[in-house]
Amino acid sequence: MPERSAAEAGERPKVIVVGGGFGGLEVVRGLKHAPVDVILIDQQNYHLFQPLLYQVATAELAPSDVAAPLRKILRGQKNVQVVLARVMGVDLQAKLVRGPRAEARYDYLVLATGATQSYFGHPEYQEFAPGLKTLDDAIEIRRRVLLAFEEAEWEADDASRRAKLTFIVVGGGPTGVELAGAIMETASRSIPKDFRFVDTSTARVILVQGSGRLLKAMPEALGELARRDLEKMGVEVWLNTRVTSAGADGVVIGERRVPAENVLWAAGVHGQPVARALGVELDRAGRVIVGCDMSIPGHPEAFVIGDAAHAIDSRTGEPVPGVAQGAIQTGRFVAEIIRRDLQGVKPQDRPAFSYKDKGSMAAIGRGRAVVSVGKIELGGFLGWLAWGGLHVLFLVGFQTKIFVFLSWVRNYLFADRRVRLITGDPQASVKRPRGATLLGERPSAGEDHGDSPE
Amino acid sequence: MPERSAAEAGERPKVIVVGGGFGGLEVVRGLKHAPVDVILIDQQNYHLFQPLLYQVATAELAPSDVAAPLRKILRGQKNVQVVLARVMGVDLQAKLVRGPRAEARYDYLVLATGATQSYFGHPEYQEFAPGLKTLDDAIEIRRRVLLAFEEAEWEADDASRRAKLTFIVVGGGPTGVELAGAIMETASRSIPKDFRFVDTSTARVILVQGSGRLLKAMPEALGELARRDLEKMGVEVWLNTRVTSAGADGVVIGERRVPAENVLWAAGVHGQPVARALGVELDRAGRVIVGCDMSIPGHPEAFVIGDAAHAIDSRTGEPVPGVAQGAIQTGRFVAEIIRRDLQGVKPQDRPAFSYKDKGSMAAIGRGRAVVSVGKIELGGFLGWLAWGGLHVLFLVGFQTKIFVFLSWVRNYLFADRRVRLITGDPQASVKRPRGATLLGERPSAGEDHGDSPE
Repeated sequence: MPERSAAEAGERPKVIVVGGGFGGLEVVRGLKHAPVDVILIDQQNYHLFQPLLYQVATAELAPSDVAAPLRKILRGQKNVQVVLARVMGVDLQAKLVRGPRAEARYDYLVLATGATQSYFGHPEYQEFAPGLKTLDDAIEIRRRVLLAFEEAEWEADDASRRAKLTFIVVGGGPTGVELAGAIMETASRSIPKDFRFVDTSTARVILVQGSGRLLKAMPEALGELARRDLEKMGVEVWLNTRVTSAGADGVVIGERRVPAENVLWAAGVHGQPVARALGVELDRAGRVIVGCDMSIPGHPEAFVIGDAAHAIDSRTGEPVPGVAQGAIQTGRFVAEIIRRDLQGVKPQDRPAFSYKDKGSMAAIGRGRAVVSVGKIELGGFLGWLAWGGLHVLFLVGFQTKIFVFLSWVRNYLFADRRVRLITGDPQASVKRPRGATLLGERPSAGEDHGDSPE
Repeated sequence: MPERSAAEAGERPKVIVVGGGFGGLEVVRGLKHAPVDVILIDQQNYHLFQPLLYQVATAELAPSDVAAPLRKILRGQKNVQVVLARVMGVDLQAKLVRGPRAEARYDYLVLATGATQSYFGHPEYQEFAPGLKTLDDAIEIRRRVLLAFEEAEWEADDASRRAKLTFIVVGGGPTGVELAGAIMETASRSIPKDFRFVDTSTARVILVQGSGRLLKAMPEALGELARRDLEKMGVEVWLNTRVTSAGADGVVIGERRVPAENVLWAAGVHGQPVARALGVELDRAGRVIVGCDMSIPGHPEAFVIGDAAHAIDSRTGEPVPGVAQGAIQTGRFVAEIIRRDLQGVKPQDRPAFSYKDKGSMAAIGRGRAVVSVGKIELGGFLGWLAWGGLHVLFLVGFQTKIFVFLSWVRNYLFADRRVRLITGDPQASVKRPRGATLLGERPSAGEDHGDSPE
């Protein structure tokens, strides 16, 4: 941790930004020409393009296609330093950030630590049902999915083989929808010719959604289109259903008996542990409640943005959604707030944040996506072109854009997923639910974000 | 393990090939039109292009650029099945291969398990000084190298910082030469602008070679050119020197005092453990001693090829070198032997293997390589073009060839290494030697392959 940067920084105010995702990077860039010194702290050395993480998990893209080194991105910005470290705690009174080996004072703090997977109070599910928030999550899911097919190829017991070929994806938001579609496509289109005994196209993919429709943040018609497209691909969509237990003895889904050895969790998000260390009020999902200027009440120099924050759109009174645009816009807003502060604007005169809904989208599989921007709603192939174009536009790095574009063209034309590698030890035991079937309880209707299960 | 393939295979002879590297793949492909059923067993699901592994370790290429899924490579070959498994043992009398869960009978066996890193009787070095034989090795080395720079950036203690910026590469063959050059290039050309406090171009890279020159398998003039080119880049080349100890309290190199936290081992190879399980005669490096038809003495239906074998070139009486061409040629030879066997040729009438030295090469860094083919010796930029062209030619997969080519062009023009990602937990402690310096003993002259250290 930078003891010397206090001295080196000289007289300029110091801004510490924790987290180099969409939100954090936006703050840093927004302060490029401001008379401040910025320190960006992240526990990873790269910026992660989360919207395409599911494609690493399904072996279509490589990790280097969705992650770019932070030092490289910020190379040209002279007033920022990058620190690879995990922030252990924050002292809001003393204006101190604590790392594993040192502390650093700040004049402004921006917490942009994002969200982690939530298991609704059941952390024990995690080893059986990995989530998809980090690059290592994606590599681990890829490993398990590819291993499932390898094991099924040589599994003599019919019931066991069926369980290995059964994939449960929990959560009907964009992540769950995209993951379910991509796994179905892998099994039915990319790899059948790789195997001699098992027919991978008979794999069963079940998408479990607690509420009554998919993609609740999008218009109802598109959620319905997504469901129909998934079902046409062969995915089973179970609405109004919950997983109520995941463990070594099996998976409980609603009232149904389902033997499945592959369970992937895309159902809930929660603020990172560092948010708790702040000692301020959090919402039920562990996010920091902030004012309309994104600052922590009582601490006008400390801000929280993106998925780590519970912020309200001042125009509509609605919460700012935990999506990429939410992080980008709150990040940009806070950079502006800090710049104004430096020019003498008082905290009470700060503007209030208002969110511009730029729409949302989700890919359903090869050549299909649902896109909603303002009043425009697209589906099918046209939606997929828009989806692909927008994602490539936002990717960092020109060579990466080319590589990703080529990978997509190849997969579309030749059904080929380039990155079908099992890294790590394939012989290492994967903790997965084993074959058992259990009756479930009837789930109650309600939100599937932030609520504890019954 | 394939119980049912015995039944499914029907009447045709069964060939079990263990290992999907250069040698194993060559055998499998050579039997494509033979009246046999082939089972290819590998503990990984991919074929690894080892010559470019060092570029994954130095963040220039991604894992998917040097590894291709075996099932995909062999998709079009109807008489082969792929099994992901580790072979635990072989019963040569009963003609059985034993896996973790089942056994399989064979009519022909080809062991192509390659080599693993050798520490000359000091396995305890391994956690401090990783080798470079597998993809996971390369990813781990990449992690350590990138972490070293991150830690050096924020290290206040001068001595500690210097130790973090000191890299020792043990072994002066092609792997060591290429690794040393690539690390020096990374430190001096690719990443200096990423860091604000530490000047990464002051990194120290020391290449330690036990004998009197580098690249002993190549003509002396090229070994000398490699040394000069490396020294021009800033690499220190220590000949006639050995590392005699590597552990938590430091690294001992000859008589010199060197504090270094980064030690990479490219000095020795050893046969895989499965070779020992055969119960036959091995050489000092754990390789199986085979006859001039590559079969195990007394077992004309069991062959060992490539790095796993101690084979003699019948023409020169010299050992077949443990290089890619050695594996490829012995693999091709054994496929031919088996085909002849099936046509009724008796074991005593088999031809003897003779090795065609197709030359060797090593890259020194950006734009320089030494290449020796027959009487032709190339160096410098011309050598690098030849080196690059030959490697791309041998890579598997058209898209991969394009991606690798583009990555090289980009690195050459823009000094950019695309894959500067630290995957796995950066906060996890890396066991590395810490700063201490120790006096060493004067090493005795001798081979640095296969001998135990003093």
